[in-house]
Amino acid sequence: MSFEFEVLKKDDRTKARVGVLKTPHGDIPTPIFMPVGTRATVKTLSNNELLDLNTKIILSNTYHLFLRPGDELIKKAGGLHKFMNWKLPILTDSGGFQVFSLTENRQITEEGVHFRSHIDGSKVFLSPEKSISVQENLGSDIMMAFDECAPYPADYDYIKHSMDRTLRWLERCVNAKTRDDQALFGIVQGGMYKDLRKLSAIETCKFDLKGYAVGGLSVGEPIEVLKEMLDTCTDYMPEDKPRYHMGVGSPDYLFESVERGIDMADCVLPTRIARNGAAFTKYGRINLKNAKFTEDFTPIEEDCDCYACRNHTKAYIRHLVMNGEILGGRLLSLHNVRFLLKLMENIRKSVIDGNFLEYKEEFYKNYGYLD
Amino acid sequence: MSFEFEVLKKDDRTKARVGVLKTPHGDIPTPIFMPVGTRATVKTLSNNELLDLNTKIILSNTYHLFLRPGDELIKKAGGLHKFMNWKLPILTDSGGFQVFSLTENRQITEEGVHFRSHIDGSKVFLSPEKSISVQENLGSDIMMAFDECAPYPADYDYIKHSMDRTLRWLERCVNAKTRDDQALFGIVQGGMYKDLRKLSAIETCKFDLKGYAVGGLSVGEPIEVLKEMLDTCTDYMPEDKPRYHMGVGSPDYLFESVERGIDMADCVLPTRIARNGAAFTKYGRINLKNAKFTEDFTPIEEDCDCYACRNHTKAYIRHLVMNGEILGGRLLSLHNVRFLLKLMENIRKSVIDGNFLEYKEEFYKNYGYLD
Repeated sequence: MSFEFEVLKKDDRTKARVGVLKTPHGDIPTPIFMPVGTRATVKTLSNNELLDLNTKIILSNTYHLFLRPGDELIKKAGGLHKFMNWKLPILTDSGGFQVFSLTENRQITEEGVHFRSHIDGSKVFLSPEKSISVQENLGSDIMMAFDECAPYPADYDYIKHSMDRTLRWLERCVNAKTRDDQALFGIVQGGMYKDLRKLSAIETCKFDLKGYAVGGLSVGEPIEVLKEMLDTCTDYMPEDKPRYHMGVGSPDYLFESVERGIDMADCVLPTRIARNGAAFTKYGRINLKNAKFTEDFTPIEEDCDCYACRNHTKAYIRHLVMNGEILGGRLLSLHNVRFLLKLMENIRKSVIDGNFLEYKEEFYKNYGYLD
Repeated sequence: MSFEFEVLKKDDRTKARVGVLKTPHGDIPTPIFMPVGTRATVKTLSNNELLDLNTKIILSNTYHLFLRPGDELIKKAGGLHKFMNWKLPILTDSGGFQVFSLTENRQITEEGVHFRSHIDGSKVFLSPEKSISVQENLGSDIMMAFDECAPYPADYDYIKHSMDRTLRWLERCVNAKTRDDQALFGIVQGGMYKDLRKLSAIETCKFDLKGYAVGGLSVGEPIEVLKEMLDTCTDYMPEDKPRYHMGVGSPDYLFESVERGIDMADCVLPTRIARNGAAFTKYGRINLKNAKFTEDFTPIEEDCDCYACRNHTKAYIRHLVMNGEILGGRLLSLHNVRFLLKLMENIRKSVIDGNFLEYKEEFYKNYGYLD
């Protein structure tokens, strides 16, 4: 049955767990990292490459697809899966985050958000109902509720007001939803205020949904604050539903998220840093623009199973990056996405084997000093 | 034995022929189209994709690699094949064409060409000896002689003088060459003057080389002139050596070249027009930026076996192109390179089957009206 979520193993010492989420387009093992295909393409990569990397679900973006090419066109194509020929699950962001991060001159009202397109400046309106309508045209497996991702820092009253409105918008999303083959996830907000996070989690999870997300974190706050907020949220989110930490994709943040009971995460980080010449490694991030790689005829990681590491050296990839050759960003994207997917595979295995914390400790022992 | 060239079948009614050229990195069926990997990468494509497309040989560029990353670095990597991990044959251009088309403030002397790097403006010198030395460091299977690709139009005296110097430079290339595992091809020049083309062909082919090229055509002259010059050249080039028409890659020009006894051709056209949104089709070139493709949910070509056509619609590729998504240029590059390779496969088959002219006529019946 679609959207059934089963926890297969719980860690004894942390909130980490391993599970599986069923969707109309296939099962998703959790915890999972979801590569981001903002405009119906995970930047630089093809579908067959994503499958080779063992991608199980991708994320796409309501805001961007609504503006271009338009959700009506994608509906005519038979939905987003057919439009981009991606056969596995898709999660669509509601557009909330982008409306609040990419647009200017926005007017937030109870009804929704008026803003100007970041492409051509034209006037656009998004609301809970409109976001759901667009996401139904896209036909994603998992839709996200339309929320306000509040700025950081923001004062208590602003966050409280915003959080309350996000809850009212969630109710409108629930009422607007018409399709049974799509799940709707609510989003817990509450800024960096523990009591608001708790309240938001409790109120959001009162809606009987297929899953719940934590939004508005990793927006510039210290990691200790993020950990505390995340812990508070997941303490009040049901165990039998998937929990999605939005916008997180650095290796260390993924560990911290899983440790706090998170099952899903997404981020543009692996593909974005790739286009800038950078690669994840177990020792931290490296940038191939660094002259020390000029004559480095070894792969990014000797033991990585990605196409880039099996076939190419740092010296060659550096040459591509330094010359602005597209293959450079492609190879780095392949490696970086594989790095995070493999990390999550290893994390799943460690939870099953009962040594998640040991795996995390070992990872941290190496990680970071190159950053 | 390396660089043995065998003509397997000659067309009865034209100079077209089918053959095979043996190289240290594999056999090349001819006539063949060679995708161009200027900077040790066929733009946007990976090696495994090139192999999937049935690429048999790629071209790379002495001038670009000499400037960046430098031929000494590539030598340290074990040569260009190892540097880019391409296991099949590579032909390297001598740098002559680029020196005369990309650089400014050049001083052509008998000794060679002084010019300024198009990257950083630094002073550089290329000569026949230097070009061969760089190409030996690159370790390509086929090296090209350092020539002057004269401008068009140019007067008779200029072309005569330039052609004579190119012959003297060829002799110096022959003398500079030290490796037995690389073939050197001489280049027939002579501008748009039939007697000079004849003279250049005769004199160039007096050098006992593994193959000969025709350069300095398709530089802006009418196609009837190109045909006449090409015919003149190949009339005086030996039948038992491969003939390479440099810089040609539009479908119609490939037909005209093969008809005049050409065995090899290269061009950046398929990847360049791809990055601009355009695709080859049997009906002519189309540009996916054209609004008429917005809701076209069919592949670029229904009967094409490339990854793009087997997996994606014009509407999706158009969406990618309109949004500057790299996958758009990738998919179009895949299709366009496959289109030319497949065209040459079909041409080989038509020569073997004795119906080359019929195949050409049928092709022309469809081709061009979309251009």
